[in-house]
Amino acid sequence: MALIVQKFGGSSVANAERIQRVSGIIADTYKAGNDVVVVLSAQGDTTDDLIEKAGEINPAPSKREMDMLLSTGEQISIALCAMCLEKMGMPVISLLGWQIGMSTNSDYGNARIKAVTGDRIKEELDKKRIVLVAGFQGINKYGDITTLGRGGSDTTAVAIAVSLHADLCQIYTDVDGVYTADPRKVPTAKKLDEITYDEMLELASLGAQVLHNRSVEMAKRYGMELEVLSSFERKPGTKVKEVTKVEQTKISGIAKDSDVARIALVGLKDEPGIAFKVFRVLAQAKINVDIILQSIGREGAQDISFTVPRHCAEEAVTVLKEHEQAIGFQLMDVDTSIAKVSIVGAGMMSSAGIAALMFEALYDAKVNIGMISTSEIKVSVLVAEDEADRAVKAIHKKFFED
Amino acid sequence: MALIVQKFGGSSVANAERIQRVSGIIADTYKAGNDVVVVLSAQGDTTDDLIEKAGEINPAPSKREMDMLLSTGEQISIALCAMCLEKMGMPVISLLGWQIGMSTNSDYGNARIKAVTGDRIKEELDKKRIVLVAGFQGINKYGDITTLGRGGSDTTAVAIAVSLHADLCQIYTDVDGVYTADPRKVPTAKKLDEITYDEMLELASLGAQVLHNRSVEMAKRYGMELEVLSSFERKPGTKVKEVTKVEQTKISGIAKDSDVARIALVGLKDEPGIAFKVFRVLAQAKINVDIILQSIGREGAQDISFTVPRHCAEEAVTVLKEHEQAIGFQLMDVDTSIAKVSIVGAGMMSSAGIAALMFEALYDAKVNIGMISTSEIKVSVLVAEDEADRAVKAIHKKFFED
Repeated sequence: MALIVQKFGGSSVANAERIQRVSGIIADTYKAGNDVVVVLSAQGDTTDDLIEKAGEINPAPSKREMDMLLSTGEQISIALCAMCLEKMGMPVISLLGWQIGMSTNSDYGNARIKAVTGDRIKEELDKKRIVLVAGFQGINKYGDITTLGRGGSDTTAVAIAVSLHADLCQIYTDVDGVYTADPRKVPTAKKLDEITYDEMLELASLGAQVLHNRSVEMAKRYGMELEVLSSFERKPGTKVKEVTKVEQTKISGIAKDSDVARIALVGLKDEPGIAFKVFRVLAQAKINVDIILQSIGREGAQDISFTVPRHCAEEAVTVLKEHEQAIGFQLMDVDTSIAKVSIVGAGMMSSAGIAALMFEALYDAKVNIGMISTSEIKVSVLVAEDEADRAVKAIHKKFFED
Repeated sequence: MALIVQKFGGSSVANAERIQRVSGIIADTYKAGNDVVVVLSAQGDTTDDLIEKAGEINPAPSKREMDMLLSTGEQISIALCAMCLEKMGMPVISLLGWQIGMSTNSDYGNARIKAVTGDRIKEELDKKRIVLVAGFQGINKYGDITTLGRGGSDTTAVAIAVSLHADLCQIYTDVDGVYTADPRKVPTAKKLDEITYDEMLELASLGAQVLHNRSVEMAKRYGMELEVLSSFERKPGTKVKEVTKVEQTKISGIAKDSDVARIALVGLKDEPGIAFKVFRVLAQAKINVDIILQSIGREGAQDISFTVPRHCAEEAVTVLKEHEQAIGFQLMDVDTSIAKVSIVGAGMMSSAGIAALMFEALYDAKVNIGMISTSEIKVSVLVAEDEADRAVKAIHKKFFED
């Protein structure tokens, strides 16, 4: 007997039929003798519908009232799923964020979890009930409802699992695990049985879109084992944990991220503090900078190239232009038709030649490499966007199929 | 400057345009220098839509989960209305039942209010904010959401008004006040400026459908002045209070109630306790009995006729048949094509001949009278359903137009 926290996303509870399937998974977990806590997201398009309703009334409502509005979505999900489990004869109760003591700060719309008391959950588990919890929502010190922002329900699940010392936290999605590459693009991609937190973090931030970083970071901090699996098929998924058993392959996966733009500042003065000036301006505008390349230019000048999320490129250009005088560059060049392709693997540093193997694959496929960036567990390269899928396939072939 | 509680029903907040109109009324009340607390119902069909969603999943869900589901409707209303007032530049905050300390018993789906702490409301009023409160919902001693059942939002408004010692509680509906008869049926019906609690109670229970009895009863108990008025027109409505200024007319209004069925038990034994047996059976089935007529039949037998709500007639017949042996009747007759027509007036007892005037009107209109029932402030008669509207018109003409 174990204590298992399960999380089901919006597409998994989108309609009555899917709620029935999800309830079947929950009931089976309970009938196998486990204590079960379930976190649910809002049904399919509910959140978008509510945002549209709000937009008709006020294009810029306060975040506090937006959270009051949006938190109803998860409430509807847990009530409907509870009714479904009741019909199956299961003992069940649904609970909201404030009822389980999900304390957050007051950053409405993007609140951070401070603590989960979980007393009510424990009480209900002692009564042998399945406990359904509304994801994505908490309560601040004023007693007001907050929402956790993107990936909020994953984070709710991990926070509850940590607070209850659960044995496992299962994240059910519409894919059946983490793959060596995006299976829609690379048909030969293989599902991984296990992956480390760090690898998952790199893959998530590189656009693998399976788990949100916040939840993986929290799981890593508290050593909570995660499992990513499908709510549509009954089979094991991918476990995310501190150390994986075998290093079957040198890398765990390949990811492509198209939300990238490259900005180049040409002809900067070659003097101390110039990079600081550039990146302070961007930091003040809350624009994240990823890969940075600094190179000596001609005649005592230098160039700086860096990448930003593509949806921030326009704003980055605007703020840099505003500070053109202070920074002192001669030319600004922006490229928005690029993509970042990365290989991720916890064992990378201890195996020589991993990066070389990647570059060889790209050379074989005749893909030009722009900037290169490396960390302990990843190597990223910038390529032309229309060559990115080909690059991923070539690298996948080199590492997993040869 | 006064403290005013306003309540708007579901049709008043059914869409963005109506929310704007309602927000205009609220803003004007605030700008006139008043403290304003507003209670809102769920938008138009929201509650029905949610009930349908539940029905697809479980035709008989627990009432606890049903309340978890349905309480989202009012939450959506207050958030949207708050956003609208924000856009108009008004300081505003929305609050849920649990946030204002709306304590109820645990009768899910039909909970009774035990107390309203209202601390949070007072705090927000001190900050000069308009306070929007979700109607229809409370919280029980377990910390679970309850709903108040039919007329719940009216009751929420009155309970808050009482707890805050408000100066006035305004109930906005889609009619502009209380009329001497249903204006859709009697075009000459007149709007009343004032009416007593007792008159309002009789009219509500007689099917006038303006205010729910629970809210009027609570207002009467605590002497809270109510005003019924339209959210579509800006003009005074009808005040409901303890004593009305003038007795312009002998009666206040005429009501028709079609939710009536007459059941006759023929050939009962003429012995003590027989009526007790009949009505205990019905009371145990929670069926309300209204008018009762007991008459001596032939040969030491007796007959009992009584009315029940028409939607309970079938169940009443079933339970009476089940107890046919114990009660001992020879024949049961049910008539579901009748209606109850009543005149209501607080000054009735002190004016002779009121009932006679009503009967004269019915005689003139050639409407047959079935059973008759009188109380201190009303006279009710049963008539054939298809003659009821004609009966109301005839009585209205006699009392208000002659």
